[in-house]
Amino acid sequence: MAQDEFERIRELAQRFGLAGDAVQLGIGDDAAVLRAQPRPIVLSVDAAVQGVHFEPAFASYAEIGARAFTAAVSDLAAMGSTPLAALCALIVPSDLPRPEFAALNEGIAQAAQRYGCPVIGGNLSGGAQLSITTTVVGTLPGPGLYRSGARAGDAVYVSGPLGSAALGLRLLQLKAAERGPAFVQAFRAPTARIAQGLALAGRATSAIDVSDGAAQDLGHICEASGIAAEIELERVPLAPGMKELARAIGEDPLRLALAGGEDYELIYTLPAGVEDPCGGTRIGRMLEGSGRVHLVDADGREIAIDGPGFRHF
Amino acid sequence: MAQDEFERIRELAQRFGLAGDAVQLGIGDDAAVLRAQPRPIVLSVDAAVQGVHFEPAFASYAEIGARAFTAAVSDLAAMGSTPLAALCALIVPSDLPRPEFAALNEGIAQAAQRYGCPVIGGNLSGGAQLSITTTVVGTLPGPGLYRSGARAGDAVYVSGPLGSAALGLRLLQLKAAERGPAFVQAFRAPTARIAQGLALAGRATSAIDVSDGAAQDLGHICEASGIAAEIELERVPLAPGMKELARAIGEDPLRLALAGGEDYELIYTLPAGVEDPCGGTRIGRMLEGSGRVHLVDADGREIAIDGPGFRHF
Repeated sequence: MAQDEFERIRELAQRFGLAGDAVQLGIGDDAAVLRAQPRPIVLSVDAAVQGVHFEPAFASYAEIGARAFTAAVSDLAAMGSTPLAALCALIVPSDLPRPEFAALNEGIAQAAQRYGCPVIGGNLSGGAQLSITTTVVGTLPGPGLYRSGARAGDAVYVSGPLGSAALGLRLLQLKAAERGPAFVQAFRAPTARIAQGLALAGRATSAIDVSDGAAQDLGHICEASGIAAEIELERVPLAPGMKELARAIGEDPLRLALAGGEDYELIYTLPAGVEDPCGGTRIGRMLEGSGRVHLVDADGREIAIDGPGFRHF
Repeated sequence: MAQDEFERIRELAQRFGLAGDAVQLGIGDDAAVLRAQPRPIVLSVDAAVQGVHFEPAFASYAEIGARAFTAAVSDLAAMGSTPLAALCALIVPSDLPRPEFAALNEGIAQAAQRYGCPVIGGNLSGGAQLSITTTVVGTLPGPGLYRSGARAGDAVYVSGPLGSAALGLRLLQLKAAERGPAFVQAFRAPTARIAQGLALAGRATSAIDVSDGAAQDLGHICEASGIAAEIELERVPLAPGMKELARAIGEDPLRLALAGGEDYELIYTLPAGVEDPCGGTRIGRMLEGSGRVHLVDADGREIAIDGPGFRHF
């Protein structure tokens, strides 16, 4: 998502800021929370738009459907929430053939089954551009996970390797998928980290899922928590062979890892001394300061990988 | 919505039919219902797509936003549900000027305020075609209202005049808005019948909101209830001056009333002898049979107004 979209969202959040008694948490985190018994209800919506978030040339329709669903469920993971149900609103051009439409829905249905998150409602509309807008509903079995609780001194972790999905997409764009099938798979069939989110709830001081790019996403934790962060570049976990393959196609592996997005791993903060229940990788720490994510090398020197690069590509 | 979209939805409903313990009611009514305390949670999603559901030439962006929100809230009304919160997913072309974008959101915010339904989350994405996908969350303070409870012999009511919005749209298409400002207003600024839905819950045996066209919408009650219905054409309520103006522009007023849609009045069924708490108009009755809506004249003779006409225009 481009920077001006964040500004627009900020404007919207201000305009929509008034909320009722039932609302425990409104706009500004990965999901909203409503008060309910036996447990609070967690709600989030996410859209996947053809030409913006996916291209049929790069994934099957089943993968497109499952991926759109997974991206929405990932917001529940980042809240420490268990999926409960989903609503799918599809805008479908009239020239989409029925087999492709069926495959899209099969992908959605399989992802719904995978995450134990039945589709209980939806909407089907015509339109010029295929889009899948998924509303996910979850519960909070534990205390929940928010963007806003990180404190200076907390360690920053990530639940798995970064940049694999971005590398997969680059390979597809270069028509070189055969050079890295595992990365193409990471792009086409990501996993929402539900179990990790549940394990982190009550231990992590903050969390977010990696959708727009790790550096940008950690920036949202910084903003919500009112502090800064530092990522030590040499600690950023990359999948086996990722560095070599990225370089072989002329890409900076760290740029893919930090700006690429769509890995749907979780980034989270743990107080010093608290063990990571997810077996993730420590990539940095939270600092006094305001909002910025600093990238530093092994010697602690700050590095700018790519000025405008931390944008959705 | 065209007939083949209903078929597609039926396919989807079958595929998505499996649901978890928390799900009280899945796909197939105006909204889904989740078990929760103190009251069940009601969920629905509705999309408004430029060129399909609205045209900027025919309404201001503020009206477009409010109307999209109202259409979603109307599904809560039809369930006898009180609005609780909403999530708005916008797909916005990059060339939409900021003032128009602001007006759109202002319209959404004003509707949210009107219905006591704060926007607690959302999504903003780029795309070729403007769309507003609204997920509404409500509670059921009473027993709820469903499509499936109508019985043969029940009377069929409508909460207000039909066809006003369709006539307003026709006037706009003919660039003749000045001939019927009240109808243009009915099209541009409809009202979701929340109070009526609440009053009907526990009394009406079924309900639906008029979104696709009264005859088609009553057809959904027939299908869900496994019976048929009869509409007495001469009883269909029309707003003052509607009949004359429709005829003056070459339209059949009854066709607008029964096939037009987007009035967002409620159609509901009451057992014989039960008084209508909403002061609506009785327009027919439920019959033994399967699924069809029969249109009859004052002498009980069946009439076909327009074969393929009962489709979304």
